[in-house]
Amino acid sequence: MLKFRRILATLLISGLLATGAVFGDTVKPANVILFIGDGMDEHQITMARNYLLGPEEGLLAMEQLPVRSSVRVQTLLENRPDRFTFIADSANSASTLATGQLTSIGRIATSAGTDFDQPTILQAARESGFLTGLVTTASLTDATPAAFVAHTAHRNCQGPEDMNRAISYAPPSQQCAIDSKQQGGPGSIAEQLIDARVDVLLGGGKKYFAQKNHSGAQLLDQARSQGYQLIDHIGQHDASDQSTEPRLLGLFSPGHLPVEWIGSGNRKAEAVELVSGKPVFAAPFDCLKNPRHNGIPTLAQMTRKALARLSRDPSRGFFLMVEGASIDKQAHRRNPCGQIGELSALDSAVAVGREFAKQHPGTLVIVTADHGQASQILPLPDNYMALTESLQSPQYPPGYYAVLKTRHDDLMAVGYATNAPPQGGWEQHTGVDVPVFLEGIDGLEVPALMSQRDIFRLMREHLQLP
Amino acid sequence: MLKFRRILATLLISGLLATGAVFGDTVKPANVILFIGDGMDEHQITMARNYLLGPEEGLLAMEQLPVRSSVRVQTLLENRPDRFTFIADSANSASTLATGQLTSIGRIATSAGTDFDQPTILQAARESGFLTGLVTTASLTDATPAAFVAHTAHRNCQGPEDMNRAISYAPPSQQCAIDSKQQGGPGSIAEQLIDARVDVLLGGGKKYFAQKNHSGAQLLDQARSQGYQLIDHIGQHDASDQSTEPRLLGLFSPGHLPVEWIGSGNRKAEAVELVSGKPVFAAPFDCLKNPRHNGIPTLAQMTRKALARLSRDPSRGFFLMVEGASIDKQAHRRNPCGQIGELSALDSAVAVGREFAKQHPGTLVIVTADHGQASQILPLPDNYMALTESLQSPQYPPGYYAVLKTRHDDLMAVGYATNAPPQGGWEQHTGVDVPVFLEGIDGLEVPALMSQRDIFRLMREHLQLP
Repeated sequence: MLKFRRILATLLISGLLATGAVFGDTVKPANVILFIGDGMDEHQITMARNYLLGPEEGLLAMEQLPVRSSVRVQTLLENRPDRFTFIADSANSASTLATGQLTSIGRIATSAGTDFDQPTILQAARESGFLTGLVTTASLTDATPAAFVAHTAHRNCQGPEDMNRAISYAPPSQQCAIDSKQQGGPGSIAEQLIDARVDVLLGGGKKYFAQKNHSGAQLLDQARSQGYQLIDHIGQHDASDQSTEPRLLGLFSPGHLPVEWIGSGNRKAEAVELVSGKPVFAAPFDCLKNPRHNGIPTLAQMTRKALARLSRDPSRGFFLMVEGASIDKQAHRRNPCGQIGELSALDSAVAVGREFAKQHPGTLVIVTADHGQASQILPLPDNYMALTESLQSPQYPPGYYAVLKTRHDDLMAVGYATNAPPQGGWEQHTGVDVPVFLEGIDGLEVPALMSQRDIFRLMREHLQLP
Repeated sequence: MLKFRRILATLLISGLLATGAVFGDTVKPANVILFIGDGMDEHQITMARNYLLGPEEGLLAMEQLPVRSSVRVQTLLENRPDRFTFIADSANSASTLATGQLTSIGRIATSAGTDFDQPTILQAARESGFLTGLVTTASLTDATPAAFVAHTAHRNCQGPEDMNRAISYAPPSQQCAIDSKQQGGPGSIAEQLIDARVDVLLGGGKKYFAQKNHSGAQLLDQARSQGYQLIDHIGQHDASDQSTEPRLLGLFSPGHLPVEWIGSGNRKAEAVELVSGKPVFAAPFDCLKNPRHNGIPTLAQMTRKALARLSRDPSRGFFLMVEGASIDKQAHRRNPCGQIGELSALDSAVAVGREFAKQHPGTLVIVTADHGQASQILPLPDNYMALTESLQSPQYPPGYYAVLKTRHDDLMAVGYATNAPPQGGWEQHTGVDVPVFLEGIDGLEVPALMSQRDIFRLMREHLQLP
């Protein structure tokens, strides 16, 4: 287990201060902003930077954080929880970031095999007097935000109507029914999000909150009765600014939010065709704004709104998780423009977070990912054609492939090859370590390799939680 | 261009000291040990650690260096040297590490398009009085070691006999003839290595040094006449310990050194077969010592030998490059055991380097890679089979695939899919940023993203070269 080598002056006075840290002679609230790029491994970052900033110079906002390390992602087997497997999903990986404990694929802050609830950092922060928030481009009930608040055997238990629906590919130990309120459980993820009274919830997933609970009440009404102001858009001066309601629930789409970018002509990666024994590559394309994203708040706007809310009371600190969810979802669908646009959107939100941290000493900013994704930067078609000529046999990438024309007019080839054409349902996660970028850890020596549990400990220590 | 934020006390006295730095009141020689894992991106490191140390804990030696960053790899186009492409080869990438300047694929420390010689750090160090060394598991004439000393239009110009041989896939501007001694050039890479009087050269490639130069003399004899002691093995107390010759040339194999590990039953990754519309996956295998490596020195032994030689004169510092070359070469061949064994061998050499650095303050240790490689950690067969069932269509990885049984008895699947079966000649490099691990840079703030030119500058600054 990793030990942080640090003389943590703030720890010595943790009895005195629940939500503050000493800076010079003044007490400032301690804050944590955790950004999670879903599926955002090193390859996805390189690809987005190449597209956005070109090959020569320039850094993403996340790359301007002063410290980088790398993170080991760990996953237990549901049927043998003493053993590991090397590919995570967002549920078990976010659960580890949220709880500091390992679990198995599909689980939301519950233990592999034994289904015990694993307490989360957001819950501990709330109990210690911190404000809390979750912001995502996915449904708020999706695995990553869910893992910071809810405890279910499976990520699919999103709304009350999901609780008695069988999940064909999950084992008996991970069916939703055991968590249903009828059976004395904590209920669906949507219900748990509201019951937990998270101060700010911004994202998609309205359809889950429109469902009715076991007493027949719509969750949206239940939310209102628990002090939530409901919003469905974010403006310069919107209703939420004047609200006296203590809590904010913003639902901006029935499900996941539409993504910011699409490929020109809606193009994605395609399987390379062979014609008379020679590979034929599709023409390059570039990325465009997605018209379906019009009127939807950006992740940066949601982050700014959440930070404004969470910092209204200058005496209290907060814990905020912000997820760029569709980097992963678009990579699964072999949509390079979708994933680059979403990584760019997350990066803009990181810039907002850094700006806030500059004004608010005592803010720990962390940017990391939950697991690797399939896409890789590959050689261009002319390279494959030259090899085809010289070896006199077709040389081409075996999966799905796209050539993007970047903002700087460079050509960049992107390949996806974890599931075979023509019927490969979707791309797979990979088992690579993921990056982490850190700011606000002055004096802390960060090792070259951390685990997700270390990130949990770092956040807990920063907030001086028990 | 990145500026290192550092008050570099040693720079102020650089007029006084050519090869030393001030530590407290005493002058110690400044040393650089640069380890290059060829093709060793984040994925290859995760994979090797999973196999060697298991999923739970434990760090590779390189991961115990105190600072990590990430490195942008940059490649120019030969026919448009003002433009970039996103996939490097070892030649242009090592050239940038060695010279601080960018170039195009295939070039050895010469400029893209214009073929100007680009001075290398090893040459500058030698001119400033430092000792110099190159150690590799490849032929010493291979691209990575070559780029630190030689200047040729193409990496294939390895021995005198290569100089008039046409390279079919290289443009006219990159044929070897222009560098031949007959045409007034500096000659082949092997000739340039000897002419440069590098103090220690250890690796493979004896067949290139057995060739004759344009005056009919064998290069091996030429080497002897230039003060090289020749060795063909390394022992506890071998001939080189007593030698009074100033220079050491160890050639331990005709070409690249045999690799340390092979797959049990000589197995590699294979294309997944479809039988009656269902994928059939080959059984897992583990890795064994390669009997062909018997009697061949390990990279750690070569590194120890080189360090002993280069530190004989306590008043002089040195520059040493150590390459784990076959991580890349084995990944090209879809041989996961080969590449993991070679990464492990490099890691053992890094441990030797760190040990030396601990005893010799003033030693900068850098571990990095030159470009990404194809292999990825993928889901296991049971995951693909479950998807095949649920989607009722075959779901399987489209390239080459292997399941390894690790030292801790975990199963790890490795996929290669940058060139399609059944005739995909070899796997391709990828364009991902690569890791860098650093030790001996006290007081230096390292940004979260560097370039290969920054690494050159860091080394040059450490040695206070003009």
